[in-house]
Amino acid sequence: MSSRLALLERFVEDECIPAEPVFTQEMAEIEARTGTRWEEVPAVLSRLKAKARSLGLWNLFMPKGHEGSANVPMQEYAQMSELMGRSSIAPEACNCSAPDTGNMEVFANYGSPEHKATWLTPLLEGKIRSAFLMTEPAVASSDATNIACDVHREGDMYVINGRKWWSSGAMDPRCKVAIVMCRHGGAEWDAKGSHGRHSMVVVPIDAPGVTMVRALKVFGYDDAPHGHAEVELRNVRVPLSSILLGEGRGFEIAQGRLGPGRVHHCMRAVGMAERALAAHVQRSRDRVAFGKALSEDSLVRHHVAQSRMEIDQSRLLVQDCAAKLEAFGLQGAIQEVSMIKVVVPNMACRVIDRAIQMQGGLGVCQDTFLSEAYAHMRTLRIADGPDEVHTRSVAKYEYRRAAGMALSSRL
Amino acid sequence: MSSRLALLERFVEDECIPAEPVFTQEMAEIEARTGTRWEEVPAVLSRLKAKARSLGLWNLFMPKGHEGSANVPMQEYAQMSELMGRSSIAPEACNCSAPDTGNMEVFANYGSPEHKATWLTPLLEGKIRSAFLMTEPAVASSDATNIACDVHREGDMYVINGRKWWSSGAMDPRCKVAIVMCRHGGAEWDAKGSHGRHSMVVVPIDAPGVTMVRALKVFGYDDAPHGHAEVELRNVRVPLSSILLGEGRGFEIAQGRLGPGRVHHCMRAVGMAERALAAHVQRSRDRVAFGKALSEDSLVRHHVAQSRMEIDQSRLLVQDCAAKLEAFGLQGAIQEVSMIKVVVPNMACRVIDRAIQMQGGLGVCQDTFLSEAYAHMRTLRIADGPDEVHTRSVAKYEYRRAAGMALSSRL
Amino acid sequence: MSSRLALLERFVEDECIPAEPVFTQEMAEIEARTGTRWEEVPAVLSRLKAKARSLGLWNLFMPKGHEGSANVPMQEYAQMSELMGRSSIAPEACNCSAPDTGNMEVFANYGSPEHKATWLTPLLEGKIRSAFLMTEPAVASSDATNIACDVHREGDMYVINGRKWWSSGAMDPRCKVAIVMCRHGGAEWDAKGSHGRHSMVVVPIDAPGVTMVRALKVFGYDDAPHGHAEVELRNVRVPLSSILLGEGRGFEIAQGRLGPGRVHHCMRAVGMAERALAAHVQRSRDRVAFGKALSEDSLVRHHVAQSRMEIDQSRLLVQDCAAKLEAFGLQGAIQEVSMIKVVVPNMACRVIDRAIQMQGGLGVCQDTFLSEAYAHMRTLRIADGPDEVHTRSVAKYEYRRAAGMALSSRL
Amino acid sequence: MSSRLALLERFVEDECIPAEPVFTQEMAEIEARTGTRWEEVPAVLSRLKAKARSLGLWNLFMPKGHEGSANVPMQEYAQMSELMGRSSIAPEACNCSAPDTGNMEVFANYGSPEHKATWLTPLLEGKIRSAFLMTEPAVASSDATNIACDVHREGDMYVINGRKWWSSGAMDPRCKVAIVMCRHGGAEWDAKGSHGRHSMVVVPIDAPGVTMVRALKVFGYDDAPHGHAEVELRNVRVPLSSILLGEGRGFEIAQGRLGPGRVHHCMRAVGMAERALAAHVQRSRDRVAFGKALSEDSLVRHHVAQSRMEIDQSRLLVQDCAAKLEAFGLQGAIQEVSMIKVVVPNMACRVIDRAIQMQGGLGVCQDTFLSEAYAHMRTLRIADGPDEVHTRSVAKYEYRRAAGMALSSRL
Repeated sequence: MSSRLALLERFVEDECIPAEPVFTQEMAEIEARTGTRWEEVPAVLSRLKAKARSLGLWNLFMPKGHEGSANVPMQEYAQMSELMGRSSIAPEACNCSAPDTGNMEVFANYGSPEHKATWLTPLLEGKIRSAFLMTEPAVASSDATNIACDVHREGDMYVINGRKWWSSGAMDPRCKVAIVMCRHGGAEWDAKGSHGRHSMVVVPIDAPGVTMVRALKVFGYDDAPHGHAEVELRNVRVPLSSILLGEGRGFEIAQGRLGPGRVHHCMRAVGMAERALAAHVQRSRDRVAFGKALSEDSLVRHHVAQSRMEIDQSRLLVQDCAAKLEAFGLQGAIQEVSMIKVVVPNMACRVIDRAIQMQGGLGVCQDTFLSEAYAHMRTLRIADGPDEVHTRSVAKYEYRRAAGMALSSRL
Repeated sequence: MSSRLALLERFVEDECIPAEPVFTQEMAEIEARTGTRWEEVPAVLSRLKAKARSLGLWNLFMPKGHEGSANVPMQEYAQMSELMGRSSIAPEACNCSAPDTGNMEVFANYGSPEHKATWLTPLLEGKIRSAFLMTEPAVASSDATNIACDVHREGDMYVINGRKWWSSGAMDPRCKVAIVMCRHGGAEWDAKGSHGRHSMVVVPIDAPGVTMVRALKVFGYDDAPHGHAEVELRNVRVPLSSILLGEGRGFEIAQGRLGPGRVHHCMRAVGMAERALAAHVQRSRDRVAFGKALSEDSLVRHHVAQSRMEIDQSRLLVQDCAAKLEAFGLQGAIQEVSMIKVVVPNMACRVIDRAIQMQGGLGVCQDTFLSEAYAHMRTLRIADGPDEVHTRSVAKYEYRRAAGMALSSRL
Repeated sequence: MSSRLALLERFVEDECIPAEPVFTQEMAEIEARTGTRWEEVPAVLSRLKAKARSLGLWNLFMPKGHEGSANVPMQEYAQMSELMGRSSIAPEACNCSAPDTGNMEVFANYGSPEHKATWLTPLLEGKIRSAFLMTEPAVASSDATNIACDVHREGDMYVINGRKWWSSGAMDPRCKVAIVMCRHGGAEWDAKGSHGRHSMVVVPIDAPGVTMVRALKVFGYDDAPHGHAEVELRNVRVPLSSILLGEGRGFEIAQGRLGPGRVHHCMRAVGMAERALAAHVQRSRDRVAFGKALSEDSLVRHHVAQSRMEIDQSRLLVQDCAAKLEAFGLQGAIQEVSMIKVVVPNMACRVIDRAIQMQGGLGVCQDTFLSEAYAHMRTLRIADGPDEVHTRSVAKYEYRRAAGMALSSRL
Repeated sequence: MSSRLALLERFVEDECIPAEPVFTQEMAEIEARTGTRWEEVPAVLSRLKAKARSLGLWNLFMPKGHEGSANVPMQEYAQMSELMGRSSIAPEACNCSAPDTGNMEVFANYGSPEHKATWLTPLLEGKIRSAFLMTEPAVASSDATNIACDVHREGDMYVINGRKWWSSGAMDPRCKVAIVMCRHGGAEWDAKGSHGRHSMVVVPIDAPGVTMVRALKVFGYDDAPHGHAEVELRNVRVPLSSILLGEGRGFEIAQGRLGPGRVHHCMRAVGMAERALAAHVQRSRDRVAFGKALSEDSLVRHHVAQSRMEIDQSRLLVQDCAAKLEAFGLQGAIQEVSMIKVVVPNMACRVIDRAIQMQGGLGVCQDTFLSEAYAHMRTLRIADGPDEVHTRSVAKYEYRRAAGMALSSRL
């Protein structure tokens, strides 16, 4: 393990995980004091961020050569993501949390100098946060070409109308900017086909017409103050410079976000699964039933082994994907990028579910990280495309390869 | 379908299910107004209870011959439980919700005339509620003989000391009484063996020394105002008449609660699974992706069929258990009672999980009943004994039968 | 248990199961003596048949009112099928084995007096056997409308050309007649739609042009002398009276075979699963590893319990299907008939697989019935329509019901 | 891909796979001609062996530095094993088939010069074959310390008495030698503990007292002429030099065989799974049902994707194990060696089972490699220790690591 990895491991273990109950407690105090969970951020987070920055554990995600980059190779960053993923607050403490990471990469790759000065620099410094507005309640967004939020030009402005939801972080009091997936209407645009008529538009969160409709919960958790917003955009006007990369090139950007983002997400999930297994093992050593420690029971041991085998296979799959992404780019890892999106969240759900079962009643309540982790992993099976869509992609590439396959399919 | 069943079906469909969002809304208003979720009950519930009572849909669970009984045969009540189980509030609307049903049966079977007058009558009238204090945080309660809450005699009083949790309904403002599983200490009691030294004690909830420590959540849901309490009992004093059935006979009572209660629980879970499947099917007909309705997709159809096959098998297993319980009593259905406790909640988790997946983001948020239903079904895999304990029992009875088996095991 | 059921149970346990190794031994001696496994039948079978007939355990399958009927109600016959299913040779011993049972029902329902005299009477007496020629190697027969074996009229004869396979029993030396699914060619017939152009034709097995191409094996088993044949039909000529029910009505007959046949098949599979579980339990009591009997191990017990829970659910589903078939006919049990075809063979595969695993090396070799039973149950997931086709039907009926559903699908 | 790998790939694809039906045909001819399947080997095998040797594709398994080694690094050999595993006859064609590989390694590591001259050299030249006699019918050999075949010294000879089964290859006409796991009896040996009283003994297959009792089948396959023998050893006398490494050191040798052998086995299974997936994909493109190619069906595609995801994860796990074995030796890969033994055969069973299902009736018969491959993979879940034993080991190492774990198990 590199010394930077070792440093990060200690930071997560010794600083972030112990800070989780502090975060929860401070959040409760904020709510009691202010009557809302959306206007203030627990102070412990600032302390952690300062500590991380002082340790050089900051913006680790940013690829080499970019402003703010810590120059971490993709495969090492995959390992770092696993470590950060063990704690719900470590990624933000290291300024490596979604959707900011993806947004920062988009600004770095496609933003104008003005975008960079206004949004990228403060994001890199952890002074503001950002949102990514993609999914919509009115359409099956699993097929992203269904996305219908309207953008059209009026003079030297674009006007946006639509409704988004699952806009993670949009209600965060620090959130200042959103990248919004929009569709251009009219026959001229329709003629460009379903993948050629969307654009990504930069929208300040305080632009007139942007309304936070409500906070969505996942399985009862609101994830405040970050949260998941339903957002209305009514006649929101932004300057022409707000479209990234160019009109109709939204899917191009979306695809660019894809590969590394998936690796990060998935490695964080692997980290959470590892922590769940550790809790699973630990609890079984502590509890006695029917005359022996639960850890002596062969069914309990069977479950522990299942989790270990599933975690290790998943991690190797993500690492393999990361290695191929680095070596060959997205096209050289396109099936892998779909595979990890299916395999890892499902694995994490199973592993955490087993850990919950081992805890008994403790496992479903607020005294452990497990039930909340389950809710998030379960949501990952839907967010950014449901399992079914990615499985479909895995098969598509399998059939493509089969068509040109050298190896025998002889029966 | 009997006319009473048909009446209940309409009550659940036309009154209870539409009242669910009203309940949620009223609960939010109460919290906003009072600053707590534990001191007032949404008014819609009283309206539903009055309606149910006027329709004769009241105390349907109570076996024939008992005070308040609606004289519903066990197998018809199983069907009723399925119908009530479709709505989270229907069981209480019909005064058929746990833990009151089990407690009322215990008072009816083992209570003194005074217990009946003080507690059973107002419970049957739906004027008060009750709690059942079994599980403890400090021991693996999956092995119920571990239960350690101390009771000992001091003069003409019993004194209780211990800590319970997952005491559902104990924080409900209407809750007035608890039945508490306690253990007698001392060598004399230890000599009676692990199943002979516990008693069930009736404790008024406002007895000095009874403290509601906090509300437990399941996957982020507090289930207020009913909820799940952690309860401290410190030097709680109750008269000698408070022990039900007799000192050391706690497990006898516990076993008596077992059979019918499991059938009710499980049939409610079947009802919830049916509702989830209906939502699953409905959503797939409404949504279009990749150029066709999701209901046209063979993988979607596969999942629908899986859910149907699993629900039907589970229901038949519970009905078979109910029929055997009625015909032969608990000993004639002892393996079945364990089987349904494992089979049904697991089935319900899978069916609801598939329905969630079909909804996409909608499925994990507060806009549907699904995520909350999942949380409760998942908890059922732990409550009243985890899967592993009941599976263990199923195997135990299998080996017993094998020992005396007429049929060939010849290889 | 009725006295007839008890009698059958003893016949299966005391006569048929002990006769299985005798059958295998005699088959080996026949092969050694004659050089083929397709020209002689082990003598033990005749002895068993005589015994069964003398006990009145004969033609139990035949519905009331038909020639040869033993007047067993469908639900009792379902229980009998389970008992017979425990032994690979019991069904034939009782003249209740496929495909003869289905063929006899077809002759009884649709045959001319001549068909009955020539084929049905000797079949009922167990003097001859029969085959059912449906599936074809050249087309995906999972979609039965693909079946392409050509029949056309030439003068007062029908001429048949095609190739069938998985024609179970066609190579049996006692097999004298086949019922053959054929398609009428030509635009006139195509106009009748894909379900209106097939006929079922009675073909003597010794008709010129009928050739047994070869014996198919399942997982290495040839199932001699019954077996599974690939059959060529080249210019086979049969009289006009050979089409059952009428030209183009083949699917009508096919559907009539459906319901009860499925119940029988599935209950036999339940019986085999029960026997596997008994073997599973027995072996675990006999073997010691790591210092204790395997039956003391909680993972072993978990597997035993899984099998018990799966078997019982499956049986109840088949019994429910049988009850609905008897009460309402095929249309009243149409979804159930598809469900059992998926649920039961999959259950049996899992249960037998667990029993194999418990035996260790013994489980995969010829010393037990398990590996052969597995091969047959695995094949049942394909025969008479693969899982996928029946799951598709289950979903189809679910969507139909949903379209007219009274119950709420409200989210 | 290295040029040697590419050469091997072409050899397997162009020579071995097309030779499989030839092998089967020749075997049938031998049986017809000689009346037995155990005295002659199909000629095609000699041709393949000569070709492989001429291509340098020979003894690829032998680690660097040993006699006959082709100097292939372990990780490259893992890839080679996958390629060879695609064909049932490729491993033997390249003189890389079990149990010869393990036996050759044992002779190379622990054999005397005489052992090497007599047995190792002709084995390396592919002139003879060998057997490994471990498992016994009378004891649960999953716990290898149960092994009871007796060896004791009489003068200057060892005398062996016992019964072994699943002695793969012992009936092969070319088999000349066996390595036999035996136990020393008596109190003195018992005192050494359950892992210290066994020895591995070299026994010429034609030694007086060695009898081939019979051939075991797996799921109906006899795997002639290699096969699986039940072997009796009655008063078999061998010289004192016959014990390898030293008296009582049998488990030491057994463990030495473990790591690399598992990697080879598992990679061959991965290769077979890949071939099954190719057949799965191919068949779905060729078949039409319900109006479209099966490959267009989303459920079919789902299954294809599942298989791809499972294969890739398994392969990565084996490769990771191989890398750790090479870098750190057995102790550095001890959990991984157990994991692959569980994960890979189970994966292969599932992948092949899906491929069978896609073929329909074709999949279970002798026309494809699938059903036989399934039988072998299913047997692998038992051979060399059942799943349950290896899962137990995985858990054991997990608990050991947990005891000294740096990472948090904080809830």
